[in-house]
Amino acid sequence: MDADITGPSIPKLFGLTDRPGQNENGLLPVESSTGIKIMSLNLLLPDETEPVVWRGPLIGSAIKQFWTDVVWGELDYLVIDLPPGTSDAALTVLQSLPVDGIVMVTTPQELATMIVTKALKMADSMGIPMLGIVENMSYTVCPHCGEEIRLFGTSKAEEFADSVGTDLLALLPIDQGLASMADGGKIEQYDLPMHKLVSTVTSKLGD
Amino acid sequence: MDADITGPSIPKLFGLTDRPGQNENGLLPVESSTGIKIMSLNLLLPDETEPVVWRGPLIGSAIKQFWTDVVWGELDYLVIDLPPGTSDAALTVLQSLPVDGIVMVTTPQELATMIVTKALKMADSMGIPMLGIVENMSYTVCPHCGEEIRLFGTSKAEEFADSVGTDLLALLPIDQGLASMADGGKIEQYDLPMHKLVSTVTSKLGD
Repeated sequence: MDADITGPSIPKLFGLTDRPGQNENGLLPVESSTGIKIMSLNLLLPDETEPVVWRGPLIGSAIKQFWTDVVWGELDYLVIDLPPGTSDAALTVLQSLPVDGIVMVTTPQELATMIVTKALKMADSMGIPMLGIVENMSYTVCPHCGEEIRLFGTSKAEEFADSVGTDLLALLPIDQGLASMADGGKIEQYDLPMHKLVSTVTSKLGD
Repeated sequence: MDADITGPSIPKLFGLTDRPGQNENGLLPVESSTGIKIMSLNLLLPDETEPVVWRGPLIGSAIKQFWTDVVWGELDYLVIDLPPGTSDAALTVLQSLPVDGIVMVTTPQELATMIVTKALKMADSMGIPMLGIVENMSYTVCPHCGEEIRLFGTSKAEEFADSVGTDLLALLPIDQGLASMADGGKIEQYDLPMHKLVSTVTSKLGD
């Protein structure tokens, strides 16, 4: 479920352009090539670049409808993608949906750590369990010399995860291959290093 | 003016921790080491990591107060930093403040281009002039071999700017020096390649 209503990017990552169908019970999610059911505001727009100029209350009600009016059927997990910040989208999801846990995504700057700490405190105040932290844009590998580059200096992710009492689930690189797969709608063909991340998160949820 | 109410990062970039003062006309902005007047919700919080869990209407009214209740005094330019997306913060600024022009910041992924196109269409529908586009995270220079790396593949910024009928103002690198200055609150000591960007924007505004 793509809960980033004003910046919905999930359909493009998966190369989806079909409009959702409908039956008497509600809206049918669109299925990706590997069978992931997806609902996003961008699937409902005539043109993916059309702006959704909505204030908070409309954003909240769109998210609630993605939960109540979409025929999700039997799912192993429902993954909700949220935009950054602690405003309407995050608040609506945490208050109105039965969330089992949160994975926070950060980047190596201290700046990002500060913003993520805000979100952590919000989740904590609402009693939602933290499953762990993923550091994105952690490093890249130089295509010319093969050396690893820490783009934003040394990672403070391990230290940060410790300081807020949660696990560091993964350090993800900036990878030109991933970027071009994402732009080409082929995100599902990207392999490593997601598997360990997914298995850690699902085993925590299984506890 | 930091209009990113739920993720305010400007004070940290400038190393500001003083609380804003007050006089009979309103709140006094905090001045940076080079004399830039700054107002941000983070300056008003007891702790910079305190979350601001506000829905849209409160966000809109905070932004309006930053405009009406802050004693800005004589300014050359008022620069407003907005979060991504086309929701409350952007809507409030474009509808309630006398905006002379917009600079859009994007990254080299097509994904980002799609989201920025949404924002462009919103600004256009409200009759706000576009001053140009800045591509962030455009490239980096390998500290091991000195070669330039296009982290997300070839830049499509020039093409994108053309397609939406505006100018490409700058391609900004990911720079470890900049990242550490930003984290250290010393953003004003960073030099290049901002000067050309600023002079282009100000000359456009002077027209």
